[in-house]
Amino acid sequence: MSSEEYKLLDTIASPRELKKLSAEELRLYCDELRRYIIDECSVNPGHLASSLGAVELAAALHYVFETPEDKIVWDVGHQTYAHKIITGRREAFRTKRRLDGISGFPRMSESEYDAFGGGHASVSISAAFGMAKAAELRSEKRQVVAVIGDGSMTGGLAFEGLNNAGASKRTNLLVILNDNNMAIDQATGALKNYLLKISTSVHYNRFKQRLWGVLSHTPWLLRLCQKAGNAVKQGLLNKSNLFESLNFRYFGPVDGHNLKELVRTLRALRDIEGPKLLHVMTVKGKGYLPAEHNQSVWHAPGCFNPDTGERISAPADAARYQDVFGETLLELARRDARVVGVTPAMPTGCSMNILLREMPERCFDVGIAEGHAVTFSAGLAAAGMVPFCNIYSTFMQRAYDNVIHDVAIQGLPVVMCLDRGGLVGEDGVTHHGVFDMAAFGAVPGLTVGAPMNEPELRNMMYTALQAGAPFMIRYPRGCGEGLPWRGVPFEALPVGRGRRLRDGRDVALVTVGTVGNAAARAAERAAVQGIGAAHYDLRWVKPLDEALLDEVGRKFRRVITVEDGCLRGGVGEAVAAYFNARGYGAHVTSLGIGDAWVEHGTPAQLYTLCGYDEEAIFRALTQA
Amino acid sequence: MSSEEYKLLDTIASPRELKKLSAEELRLYCDELRRYIIDECSVNPGHLASSLGAVELAAALHYVFETPEDKIVWDVGHQTYAHKIITGRREAFRTKRRLDGISGFPRMSESEYDAFGGGHASVSISAAFGMAKAAELRSEKRQVVAVIGDGSMTGGLAFEGLNNAGASKRTNLLVILNDNNMAIDQATGALKNYLLKISTSVHYNRFKQRLWGVLSHTPWLLRLCQKAGNAVKQGLLNKSNLFESLNFRYFGPVDGHNLKELVRTLRALRDIEGPKLLHVMTVKGKGYLPAEHNQSVWHAPGCFNPDTGERISAPADAARYQDVFGETLLELARRDARVVGVTPAMPTGCSMNILLREMPERCFDVGIAEGHAVTFSAGLAAAGMVPFCNIYSTFMQRAYDNVIHDVAIQGLPVVMCLDRGGLVGEDGVTHHGVFDMAAFGAVPGLTVGAPMNEPELRNMMYTALQAGAPFMIRYPRGCGEGLPWRGVPFEALPVGRGRRLRDGRDVALVTVGTVGNAAARAAERAAVQGIGAAHYDLRWVKPLDEALLDEVGRKFRRVITVEDGCLRGGVGEAVAAYFNARGYGAHVTSLGIGDAWVEHGTPAQLYTLCGYDEEAIFRALTQA
Repeated sequence: MSSEEYKLLDTIASPRELKKLSAEELRLYCDELRRYIIDECSVNPGHLASSLGAVELAAALHYVFETPEDKIVWDVGHQTYAHKIITGRREAFRTKRRLDGISGFPRMSESEYDAFGGGHASVSISAAFGMAKAAELRSEKRQVVAVIGDGSMTGGLAFEGLNNAGASKRTNLLVILNDNNMAIDQATGALKNYLLKISTSVHYNRFKQRLWGVLSHTPWLLRLCQKAGNAVKQGLLNKSNLFESLNFRYFGPVDGHNLKELVRTLRALRDIEGPKLLHVMTVKGKGYLPAEHNQSVWHAPGCFNPDTGERISAPADAARYQDVFGETLLELARRDARVVGVTPAMPTGCSMNILLREMPERCFDVGIAEGHAVTFSAGLAAAGMVPFCNIYSTFMQRAYDNVIHDVAIQGLPVVMCLDRGGLVGEDGVTHHGVFDMAAFGAVPGLTVGAPMNEPELRNMMYTALQAGAPFMIRYPRGCGEGLPWRGVPFEALPVGRGRRLRDGRDVALVTVGTVGNAAARAAERAAVQGIGAAHYDLRWVKPLDEALLDEVGRKFRRVITVEDGCLRGGVGEAVAAYFNARGYGAHVTSLGIGDAWVEHGTPAQLYTLCGYDEEAIFRALTQA
Repeated sequence: MSSEEYKLLDTIASPRELKKLSAEELRLYCDELRRYIIDECSVNPGHLASSLGAVELAAALHYVFETPEDKIVWDVGHQTYAHKIITGRREAFRTKRRLDGISGFPRMSESEYDAFGGGHASVSISAAFGMAKAAELRSEKRQVVAVIGDGSMTGGLAFEGLNNAGASKRTNLLVILNDNNMAIDQATGALKNYLLKISTSVHYNRFKQRLWGVLSHTPWLLRLCQKAGNAVKQGLLNKSNLFESLNFRYFGPVDGHNLKELVRTLRALRDIEGPKLLHVMTVKGKGYLPAEHNQSVWHAPGCFNPDTGERISAPADAARYQDVFGETLLELARRDARVVGVTPAMPTGCSMNILLREMPERCFDVGIAEGHAVTFSAGLAAAGMVPFCNIYSTFMQRAYDNVIHDVAIQGLPVVMCLDRGGLVGEDGVTHHGVFDMAAFGAVPGLTVGAPMNEPELRNMMYTALQAGAPFMIRYPRGCGEGLPWRGVPFEALPVGRGRRLRDGRDVALVTVGTVGNAAARAAERAAVQGIGAAHYDLRWVKPLDEALLDEVGRKFRRVITVEDGCLRGGVGEAVAAYFNARGYGAHVTSLGIGDAWVEHGTPAQLYTLCGYDEEAIFRALTQA
């Protein structure tokens, strides 16, 4: 589609101008917004379906509220593309998630309209309540709005925020529950059933429609109806209201694609004091049929043909690590009745859906609740099971204490699989899994492995099952090396023992995890130039293979370590400290992530930027 | 009181024997239990008030359920003294919290009756649900009970557990909400108000009393009354039920000190399938008047005279670090209107009650909700405030992601004060704050300071207020060095710059934090023996003072680092790696906590055990 079709988008460059539109123009503007998002995402992939579901909501919010003085906090930020385009980033939107382009998530540093950053779930209520409290203390009159999905609402942090904010009777805080009955995958849990019940009750909705339609044109009437409303709702539903238990005034549900209703409701709510929650029903993928029909797949679909809905995927030469995990888990579960799977709302993302399909009773999607996922796993393990709990490395930061307190101290056989370890690419700074080796390497009693390729991941999972102790396996996003693994007989790996992959006399490479593959190629190239680089794969972040390090320390004067994680507290530092303790004089050059945040870009770009791609390793080998 | 007064305690050594008691004997047994706990805690301090509140509950649970086959998961474990004594640990109870004695918390390794470990809050529902699911998968018939306080219920993890378990209609899980309207301090938040409302409604309680009294003698009648109950309750209260929203069947409230009612209710609930919650009202400190009247103080009162209720405290020569924090915070708040305080249910523990008393509107007790405390602080900071968020180091593990995602990535000026950094002593393995330097040292954009004494803590807080960036200050439990600090003029410390405290030519000591004081004494003693030990106080865990390290690296062949935290990922390792990178040949001996769990004991005992007390440092200095 050509840009001439974006007549309104072409003229509206800020919320200020948006406010001048008539109701009908606003509707047309939203149609253009939606088309633009679809067009752009078809060639420059991103989080499509969530953003399509929030087009009208974003427009209505900026239409009604005085942003940026009023603050909108978007939870996670998967749904903020319309918001970004409305707030002056229409052109920049073409650069989203690319190196030096704008972020796919809200960023305070990117725009004054991004009141708070996003990326991880369930944050918005806490942050928005902080802002609302600050406004109260500073006697600033401003509205603070948190927009949170029903998926994010299952995170305990959201409940902590509600519990705290609900006790603050005068603080102006509007929580908008953007309810599409989905996390990335289908929503799960008791809350989901509850929301479904209150939003689908025929009696209730009929009542609500009449109530809102007839009474809500003036604020005082609205207030009256709200007061009456709770009692009447109670009677109609014969059902409690969870949010009102926590002292939030509950409004809704309203149709999140009905602009007129949204605008009218938001205007009315603006004038009501105290903590309040508006329940908005939206459709994930709204307005684009393929996305509406398969919401999980279209959460982040990659490139596609916008006209046909055909997804364009680059041919992969190798299986993805997540699929090696998913298929191996099923295989282990078939062999051993103790094996179960636990995922915090990521069955598709980590490929645990493979187990879920075949053995639903042994696979637990516990909702967006990383802490619970780990402690629940600990409970399973305490009662005789061996749970494989898969959590993206960046999200495992949320379960740091659960790993220490509930798994490691008690020595329970939970196998924690950290997908998306290391740099993840386009999702950027909030999603890189770069702190895991430093944070978990310090925890006693924990084994932490980082396989170099597909068969190693597979065998590490097999080893973990037999370990009978806390176990962590960390592997990256994306595809493997194309090595055979499917159906290859399992082999137990010696825990805490690495391996020498290559001999050489000039310099030693010590790597951990999949960066070892780039290192191996670099060593190959160095050999062509006459530089003999030995290569050791540590395999285990913890325990460190001291025998291997003794060999390296005794033999080499120059050692290069490579890791896909932060250098502070990382493996290279541990190696250098070990050499010092043993009196080996080898000089250690550590490649990895320095003391700075890494933004978004392709993984290849970011490896280069951080100085541990093949080329950088080759340079380190060949420079004296 | 002499042991002859414990006639029943003397004869009952296990739950099996407990079951043989008549109702009247059980009541007498509970009286003896309570007396024994008071007597023992008067000379061997512990968590008194919570345990006194749960005497009848513990006895009733073991009386009704078939422990250890049935599983009781105690949340936190402050309330488990009766449970420990009932389950064969009456004599061992005299050793509680002492080196080589039993733990003050439940420990799986200590007894088969301790179904899951405790220490940190809000864990029990997740763990118990895991056990219940495992039993279901293994076709084992067993009851799983989680006992959780109303304070712990505000932690998001508890909500995550409820949300997940509530969706599992057939799983046998009984959650007992032990509601005493207290965390360590007064409970806060919307949930507290809600619980107060449903437990104090006169209509409701009258109804309930009649209902339970008349109808609950046979299971089928109970079931009937329960079904009717929800509807009737709804009508009577005209109020929702939060727990039923999450698909838990709600029972209660019942009087947690009425053994007859407790036993009858638990027996009836044993036969009801699915997730259910029993609301039990207890009094913290029950049966010991001084404790009932001042529940915060008697949470962990130290030694006392059981007859008079007079607390016996050892005279302190120096202020506690927590009081230096508390008073300095108030002073800064008076000077700067941007300063606010945030604590997750620890106003007394961290002495933020000093600010709370004088400026209640600028001090936020957000409930047991560490993640929220940090993200709420980030929201406050994003809107112009400078929050001082105080969280014990061990509990900050729960907010690791919030620090990274909400504070550090966004560069927000939140001052995170980590009380109880390092070894904490008697609370033991779950409470030592030993991972903070490794975990947070890896986070870019964060300044992490560790003051050596009172004026340094005070000045570090002053420096933090001016930093305008993420800031962390870590200091230990207990008393300071007795240096003057109150009213001493503030002085800004140069961030990232340490200091040389002592010259010497033989060996260099590099310390961070309060361990520097033991190191200084050791250096003094070494000097007497003719060994010249220079002493450098790094002051900052991050950024490391490279100029200082350059001086040390150039001047010395032997360097000894000392830190009150884990060695893996710690400061000593960073120093050794830095020396290696710069080519300094100095040999580094790092004193700190090795790769093992540290149990309970006095701090002095534990420093000795871990090898970094004054004596150990002295040995390191004087051994070649």
